[in-house]
Formats: sequence, structure tokens, C-alpha cells
Amino acid sequence: MEKGLLIVFTGNGKGKTTAALGMALRAAGHGMRVLILQFIKGAWNYGELDALKRLEQVAILPLGTGFTWQKENLEEDRRLAEAGWQMATREISRGAYDMIILDELNYVLSYGLLPVNVVVDAVKGRPAKLHLVVTGRNAPEELLEAADLVTEMRNRKHPYHDQGISAQKGIEY
Amino acid sequence: MEKGLLIVFTGNGKGKTTAALGMALRAAGHGMRVLILQFIKGAWNYGELDALKRLEQVAILPLGTGFTWQKENLEEDRRLAEAGWQMATREISRGAYDMIILDELNYVLSYGLLPVNVVVDAVKGRPAKLHLVVTGRNAPEELLEAADLVTEMRNRKHPYHDQGISAQKGIEY
Repeated sequence: MEKGLLIVFTGNGKGKTTAALGMALRAAGHGMRVLILQFIKGAWNYGELDALKRLEQVAILPLGTGFTWQKENLEEDRRLAEAGWQMATREISRGAYDMIILDELNYVLSYGLLPVNVVVDAVKGRPAKLHLVVTGRNAPEELLEAADLVTEMRNRKHPYHDQGISAQKGIEY
Repeated sequence: MEKGLLIVFTGNGKGKTTAALGMALRAAGHGMRVLILQFIKGAWNYGELDALKRLEQVAILPLGTGFTWQKENLEEDRRLAEAGWQMATREISRGAYDMIILDELNYVLSYGLLPVNVVVDAVKGRPAKLHLVVTGRNAPEELLEAADLVTEMRNRKHPYHDQGISAQKGIEY
């Protein structure tokens, strides 16, 4: 039985986006076509993007350009999130990919920039064989209920929090 | 400050090895040299290996070939784990890589195939700038204490356990 899974990586620990990256790599290795939609500007960076661009089956589309994350601009953020989501639903429905990664979508949802029920309905109504991978902390309960596989990345120890070590190239960025 | 971090991905959830894969991808994108040592035969497969082989900065070395995981062959498993560990310590000390991933080392440790204190001492004594990434469930407490960053991947929902869905290409293998 071939079935597109809904996979959620959530929690406050490191490894959510890196696990999604690993899934992109794995899928690409199988010749599957992968689309990565980045909902937050700057969440990914040079290192990953450069390596992923060498994998011809992987496409990357940044959606979050322009997010302000300022309270006074909440309406503008909502408008941009809505525009990004329109693009996401188009890609989900058109069937050009075997796997779509919705990176940091949970973050956008948890800030109330998109209505959870609209997103969950679209996710449930995806093409039957399409794998969706959703990352970001604070995944909404409705999304977890719809998911086939949920891993919570729990922070048990973190150098920046616990030891005051600065960000390291190749690790954090 | 440039400091090699000890990073541990543990817990019973999915995403430990995939997160390590993502870190290899990220580091390779920065031009860092990455070595992946696989302590368990068959834990990785065709999909990842094929994609990783396209990244010239990433080398992969399988160590676990021959693990029997049968009680009557525990001594043979110990011997093979020891031989694999010798190779690992050589690579850790010789300084040819910026990041070394010790995939499923926790698993080997939790089965008592290698002495935890010997491994932890070697890990602590690594070159100052070398990043080590250790994956596998049941990471020993001594390793967690030595680590700079620990993420516990917790299984909150799993299709194979919860819904009887068979393994999907590009997801599980």
C-alpha cells in the first residue's frame, strides 16, 4: 500500500528542520521529487540551501520574505502568510511533487497568522500519495490529530542556553 | 569562538538519524568535511546513501557489517564493535574531518558492546574543533553529561505502531 503520510516534527528542541532536511535527502536519493516551502525567512541558510541545490530533485521556495514579526504589523504579516499559504495549497494540489516540506508552518499557525482549520482541511485533502512534512514548535492539536507520524523534539541540553557558547558554523547556520 | 560540539540525538521517536543526515548536509553546504560512521548495518539505506554520495565532502564508512544481534554470538558482536570503535577513534584523532557522525553508537553502547567510559573519554578528548554527532536511542547518562547539545526525539504518534500502515519508500527507507 502506497500512502502519503503526514509527518510532524515539533517541540522545543533542535533537529526539527534538520530532520526534514534529512527526509528531503532520503527522498531525493530515491528519485522522488521534493519541494521545500520555507514559511519563515532566514530559518534556513546558506549551508543547507547550497547543499540542497546540488540535488536536482529538490526545489526550494521561500515564502516568508517580508515577515515583520512586529505587533504593529500583524495585519501585514497575516496578509503575507495568506499569500504564502495560497502558494502552498497550489503546490499541494497540483501533484508535481512526491513530498512537500512545510517548514515552520507550525510557527506561523501558533502565531495565529493562518486559521488552523483551513490549513488542516487542506492537509487532509491532499493527493493520496503525497507526503507532507510539517515542522515548527507548538504544532496545533488539530494538526497532530490528523498526522500519521509525530515526533516531538525535546530540548534536554542546549549550549546557547546552558553554557553561553556562541553559534557554530555548520551547526546552527 | 570556534568550538567543536558534542551533539546527541536520542529518544524513541523518528528523526534521530534523519537529523544527523540534515546536519551532514548543512555542514557540507559550508564546505566542511563530514564523515559518517554507521555502527549498525542496514540502519541506513539506498535512499540516503545515494543522495549523500553526491556530496563530495561527505564520506560514509559502514562499521556494523556482521553484527549478529544474537545472544549466542554476543562475544562476536563485542569483537566487531571493538574493531569498529578502533576505526572510529582513529578517525576522531587524525583530524581529517570537521564533523563526524557516529550513527547508532548509543544503540551499541546500550547493548553493552562497548564500555561507556572508554567511549566517553575518547569523545571528550577529541580535537578541539571537531563536531561529533551521536545518534541512537538510550544514550548513556555519562554521554549526555559530556554533551553540549542533546535533543530527545519522543515518539508521539507512529503509523506503524498506531495504524498498521506499512513502511513507505522515501520515508522509512
